[in-house]
Amino acid sequence: MSFDLDSILANDRLAVARAISAVERGGEEARRALVALYPHTGRAHVVGVTGAPGSGKSTLVCRLAAWLRARGLSVGIVAVDPSSPFTGGALLGDRVRMQELSCDPGVFIRSMANRGSLGGLAETTVDAVAVLDAAGYQVILVETVGTGQAEVDVARAAHTIVVVVVPGMGDDIQAAKAGILEIADILVVNKADWENAERTIAEMNMTLQLGAPGAGWIPPVLPTVATQGTGVDEVAEAIGNHRQWLQESGGWEERQHRNARQRLLGAAQRRLYTLLVQRTDRERLEYLVQQVAERRIDPYAAADALLEMGGCPATGETEEPS
Amino acid sequence: MSFDLDSILANDRLAVARAISAVERGGEEARRALVALYPHTGRAHVVGVTGAPGSGKSTLVCRLAAWLRARGLSVGIVAVDPSSPFTGGALLGDRVRMQELSCDPGVFIRSMANRGSLGGLAETTVDAVAVLDAAGYQVILVETVGTGQAEVDVARAAHTIVVVVVPGMGDDIQAAKAGILEIADILVVNKADWENAERTIAEMNMTLQLGAPGAGWIPPVLPTVATQGTGVDEVAEAIGNHRQWLQESGGWEERQHRNARQRLLGAAQRRLYTLLVQRTDRERLEYLVQQVAERRIDPYAAADALLEMGGCPATGETEEPS
Repeated sequence: MSFDLDSILANDRLAVARAISAVERGGEEARRALVALYPHTGRAHVVGVTGAPGSGKSTLVCRLAAWLRARGLSVGIVAVDPSSPFTGGALLGDRVRMQELSCDPGVFIRSMANRGSLGGLAETTVDAVAVLDAAGYQVILVETVGTGQAEVDVARAAHTIVVVVVPGMGDDIQAAKAGILEIADILVVNKADWENAERTIAEMNMTLQLGAPGAGWIPPVLPTVATQGTGVDEVAEAIGNHRQWLQESGGWEERQHRNARQRLLGAAQRRLYTLLVQRTDRERLEYLVQQVAERRIDPYAAADALLEMGGCPATGETEEPS
Repeated sequence: MSFDLDSILANDRLAVARAISAVERGGEEARRALVALYPHTGRAHVVGVTGAPGSGKSTLVCRLAAWLRARGLSVGIVAVDPSSPFTGGALLGDRVRMQELSCDPGVFIRSMANRGSLGGLAETTVDAVAVLDAAGYQVILVETVGTGQAEVDVARAAHTIVVVVVPGMGDDIQAAKAGILEIADILVVNKADWENAERTIAEMNMTLQLGAPGAGWIPPVLPTVATQGTGVDEVAEAIGNHRQWLQESGGWEERQHRNARQRLLGAAQRRLYTLLVQRTDRERLEYLVQQVAERRIDPYAAADALLEMGGCPATGETEEPS
């Protein structure tokens, strides 16, 4: 058993790395680790940084980490983008900066493998954040590529969501990404030295003001040139302001509550599924799968049959009409 | 009730569009539609086309659709990439080609909104494919951006998976995408007129040969310049060859079986979850969420408490040690 609570709480790097690996593998060991760690979580400021591949979000994360370190804050970085420099694919400049960061005991960098079952990625990322939170990292930057649903869900689990876009790329694309813009607390227009940056900034301001819910937080639109560090101060300050606003407005508790609900219902769902699979007779399952494959029965009727057998009385008095 | 089985089976475009919308909304109406349609599915050749934004996969899909139409096959297109031209963001040339396609009654194009709950995207996409299958489309091209887990799952639900990469982009990135390469039945190196294309093709051939499972199908590596139509014939023929191989080797039934299992277990999981939420006392749920948010109880213990109450005896004799 490689799990050692005291070492994790003392931020022993090897213990932290092992705990995250356990979390990635999942199963009973992960569950035991998370049950033990859970009471020690809830202190870190979790910041999601999301954007398409090539938007420069990794460089921004790198710069933000350096900014926070310069102010004495410890920083965890969890990268979920398979093309992220933190995962291996890096421009040389990034790599040098990242090596500086990774030699700093106040920084812990971890990239998550983009694999596993549906929903598994979002779950294990949130769990990896919990490990870093328990280990005492004060700000945890979670880098995701904003194209997949799982990644949007990861971003939603953060207190503060930074969405990174680049100028141009077609207004159409930006519009199609309204789903991502909707969840932004801070919008960064990176590569703001490109020629059509002004227009993108104006458009983003308009989009976000249209969507701004009354007297709440209005997401600022901030230009950056992350490779040169331009505008990074403003982004870091906006992140701090957002945290303060969350704490003063009650939004912090609201987001903790939302995350708690997501974790609870997610755990319940996975538990139910595990129990279902455990209690199902293998032969009977194979028979049903074959019937579905041959179109003799639809998947929904087969699912009901499975639940009936599984020892879990799914078709009770609250059954919907079918 | 807007659902009309006979009109869908007769490929009435309005009825098909409405059924897909119902599927996107989910709930009881979607379920009723899919139960009715299910016996009429299983005939279409479902081809997943996946690749990063900017890899040119939309243009390739467009060209493949035209190739198939020229041979008298009806074609369904389901686009899951929010930045896809099919979703609105298009280069002018693409848009013209796409308008030609969309005026053709033998082509049905639908883009899926990249939203909804975790796993919802993969589910509704597979369901939209089922609608087009029942409506009689012979080949269904499913375009996904290959970065998110949900998209990989969508691709896995296809009979034939085409992965599109571009030359260069850093070997690191390509390596990180091994997860995507693993699932390729056909690998397309698009933009093969770029200078470093030869090397990428050689590398891809090596990677895929290493991973090739013995005497089975060896994924061909095919260069294309989709914007000019170069190499599209070869890709279309490889897709046809793969179908034939599947049918001769028993792989077709195997994939139908795998999809049936995924659909059955997925339906069972969602059913369980719905029942759990229905049977749970709201106040009690809120209480538990609050306890989790305050770190008084961990999500796993809370989930067990929820299942206990929900009328579903989750903690039976097969309970794991905790």
